[in-house]
Amino acid sequence: MNFELLTTTENSRARAGVLSTDHGVIETPIFMPVGTAGSVKGIHTRDIKEDIKAQIILGNTYHLYLRPGIDIIEKAGGLHKFNGWDGPILTDSGGFQVFSLGDIRKLSEEGAKFQSHIDGSYHMFTPENVMDIQRTIGADIIMAFDECAPGDADYTYAKKSLELTQRWLERCFIQFNKTQAKYGYEQSLFPIVQGNTYADLRKLAVAHVKNFDANGYAIGGLSVGESEEVMYEMTEVATADLPENKPRYLMGVGTPVNILESIDRGIDMFDCVMPTRNGRNGMLFTSEGVINIRNKKWENDHSPIDENGTSFVDQYSKAYLRHLVISNEMLGAQIASQHNLAFYLWLVKTAREKILNGEFLGWKKEMVVKLKQRL
Amino acid sequence: MNFELLTTTENSRARAGVLSTDHGVIETPIFMPVGTAGSVKGIHTRDIKEDIKAQIILGNTYHLYLRPGIDIIEKAGGLHKFNGWDGPILTDSGGFQVFSLGDIRKLSEEGAKFQSHIDGSYHMFTPENVMDIQRTIGADIIMAFDECAPGDADYTYAKKSLELTQRWLERCFIQFNKTQAKYGYEQSLFPIVQGNTYADLRKLAVAHVKNFDANGYAIGGLSVGESEEVMYEMTEVATADLPENKPRYLMGVGTPVNILESIDRGIDMFDCVMPTRNGRNGMLFTSEGVINIRNKKWENDHSPIDENGTSFVDQYSKAYLRHLVISNEMLGAQIASQHNLAFYLWLVKTAREKILNGEFLGWKKEMVVKLKQRL
Repeated sequence: MNFELLTTTENSRARAGVLSTDHGVIETPIFMPVGTAGSVKGIHTRDIKEDIKAQIILGNTYHLYLRPGIDIIEKAGGLHKFNGWDGPILTDSGGFQVFSLGDIRKLSEEGAKFQSHIDGSYHMFTPENVMDIQRTIGADIIMAFDECAPGDADYTYAKKSLELTQRWLERCFIQFNKTQAKYGYEQSLFPIVQGNTYADLRKLAVAHVKNFDANGYAIGGLSVGESEEVMYEMTEVATADLPENKPRYLMGVGTPVNILESIDRGIDMFDCVMPTRNGRNGMLFTSEGVINIRNKKWENDHSPIDENGTSFVDQYSKAYLRHLVISNEMLGAQIASQHNLAFYLWLVKTAREKILNGEFLGWKKEMVVKLKQRL
Repeated sequence: MNFELLTTTENSRARAGVLSTDHGVIETPIFMPVGTAGSVKGIHTRDIKEDIKAQIILGNTYHLYLRPGIDIIEKAGGLHKFNGWDGPILTDSGGFQVFSLGDIRKLSEEGAKFQSHIDGSYHMFTPENVMDIQRTIGADIIMAFDECAPGDADYTYAKKSLELTQRWLERCFIQFNKTQAKYGYEQSLFPIVQGNTYADLRKLAVAHVKNFDANGYAIGGLSVGESEEVMYEMTEVATADLPENKPRYLMGVGTPVNILESIDRGIDMFDCVMPTRNGRNGMLFTSEGVINIRNKKWENDHSPIDENGTSFVDQYSKAYLRHLVISNEMLGAQIASQHNLAFYLWLVKTAREKILNGEFLGWKKEMVVKLKQRL
C-alpha cells in the first residue's frame, strides 16, 4: 500500500492524495459506503461500482464474524469473492459494535467477552483474534481492536481506556506482524487514535500510534454524542501531529457538512451509515440542501429527485419517491440510499477537484451554507 | 392495438404472436411483472427493462387508487410518467383485491363498497368509475370490473355471480366507449371470462364476452384454490371458444409449470406475484428446478445462483444470497426477486422460440420435469 500526497491547501489542512492498494487506487479525500453484513443495504454491487462510483467499501467484523461466520467467508476465498466487490475493502475491528452492546459485554485486559445480538451465544474478541478474523475476512485495510469509551466518559475513565487501547494496539501489531495475508494481496493495519474529548489524551494517543510504522491512521471515538465543535477540535488536535505522508481516516463521520469541515482539517477517509440509514427513512442529501421526502409538499412535485444528481435514480420524480416511501415499498429505500451514496461520493470527488485546483476553501464556504438548508 | 398471430402448434394450442401497442411491441407468450403500487417490488425500472427484459408490466387499480391516489397520477401525466416505465402497462380492475377484503366490502348491483385496508375510509367501485380510474391511470390495457367469486362457490352462487359480471361488463363497455384516452395513446378494454370451476358457465361466459369486439380477452377466477387439473380444464374450455386472432390473458397464474401448461392450452399473457413474493421468502425458480436458498445445504456453495441465468444478479453466489436472506438484508430480496423475474421472462421467451421453430411440445415435456425438481 502506498499513499501519494498530491497537494495541500493554503490556510487549510485539506489535502488530495492517491492511496494505492492491491485492489485498486483510492483517490482521497474519499467516502466509504458501509456494507455492515457484506452488502451495502439495498444496493447491488454493480451499482456501488458503476453508478455510485465508490472506490472502497467497509465491512463490519462484528457482524460478519457472527453471520455468516468466518469459515464461510474463508471458503469463499475472502469477502471480495463472497460479496462480489473487487475493489478495496476496509473492515472495522468490531470494537465499536461490541462496546455498543452495553450489558451483554464484559471488558478485561484480555479482551471483550460478549453475547451475540442474534442468538445470545458467548464470544470473546481479543486484539489477537480480531487480527486473525480480519486477515481471514481479507480486508485490504484492517483496523486495530480498541476500546471505544462512551462519549461522556470522565477524564479518569478516558485515560484508563486510552491506555488499554494502547496496550491492545501493541498486541494487535505483534499478531498482525507474525501472521500473513491469506489470499495473496497486501493487508495493512491502521491504528486508531482514541482519547475521548480530552485534547491532551488525543495528543498522547497520536504520539503513541506514531511509534508504529503504519500505512494509515484512524481517529475513533468521535461523533458519539459530543458537540460538533468538540469533534472538530479533537480532529484538529489529531491531524496536527499525524504523519503528513499517510492517510487519515475519521471513523463514523458524518453529515455532508461534517465531511467538508473535516477535510478542511486534514482528513482523507470517511465512512458513515447516515446516507443509507437516513435514506431508508426518507431523508435525501443534495447539493442544495436536505429533503424530507415524506413531507406533503413533495406529493405533487413531479420533477426529478435531484436535477444535479449523478445517479440514474435521480431521474425518478420526487412525487414517485414520496409515494414509495410512504407506502413502505422497498424501492423507496433503495432509491433514497443510492441517491445519498452517489451524492456523498460526488461531494468528496468535488472537494478533491477543488483542492487540486486551489478553490477548496471558497467552495466549501458556499457549500456548507447550502448543505444546511432544509428544502 | 393490433395482434398478429405468427404461428400455431400441431397437437397443441400453443401460439406465438405480436401484440402492438402505442408503448411498444409485446412478443407473446409473455409474462407481466406485477407492480402493485406502481413499482415492481425491489427492482429499479431500469432493470425491469434492461436486465429482466420485461415488455409489459401490471399495476393494481385498487392500490394505486388508494395510494398515491388518482389525482397525483393524473398530475404526473399518467402512470408511465409517474413510475418512469415507458413500455406498455396493464391495470387490473380492482375486482380481485376488493373481493379479497372479505368483511370490509359489500356487494350490490351498483358495485362494491369497501373500506381501505390503509385507513378504513369508505369507497365505492362501480363498472363506470373503475373505467374512469383506469383511463386516468393511463393503462394501455384496461380490465373489466368483475366479481371474482370464491374458488369454492357452489353452482348457484357461481351462476349468479357470472350474471352480475356480465351485466357489469356491459356497463364497462358503455362507459369505456363514451370516454376518451387522456394522454394521447390508445387504451383497450379486455373483458374477463368468469364461471368458477363450472365448464358450462365458462362456456356461457366466453360466448358472452365474444359479443364485445375487444382487443383481447382475459380468463379470471382461476388459481384461487382449485386443483391444477381443474384450472387447466377451465382454461381449455375457455381457449377452445375464444377468438383465435386476439390475445388471451390468464390472470394471476402461476408457477413456471402452470405457465408452460397454459401456453400449451392457448394462453398468450400471464401475470403473477409469485416470482417476487416467493423471491422475498428465499425461493428461486431456475431451469433446473426450485431452490430454497434458506436451506443449510447452500451455506458453503460459492457457485453462481444460476449458471444459466440471464440476469446480472445470477453472478452472486448461492452462499452469499443465503447469507443475505438469512440476515434479512434487503439486497437478498432484491436479488431473488430479480432473478425470478428474469427467469420467468426467459421461460416465456424460450417457449416462444420453441413454438416458432416447432419444438414446443418436446421441450415443454422436458422442462416440466426439471421445473418440478427441488434442488
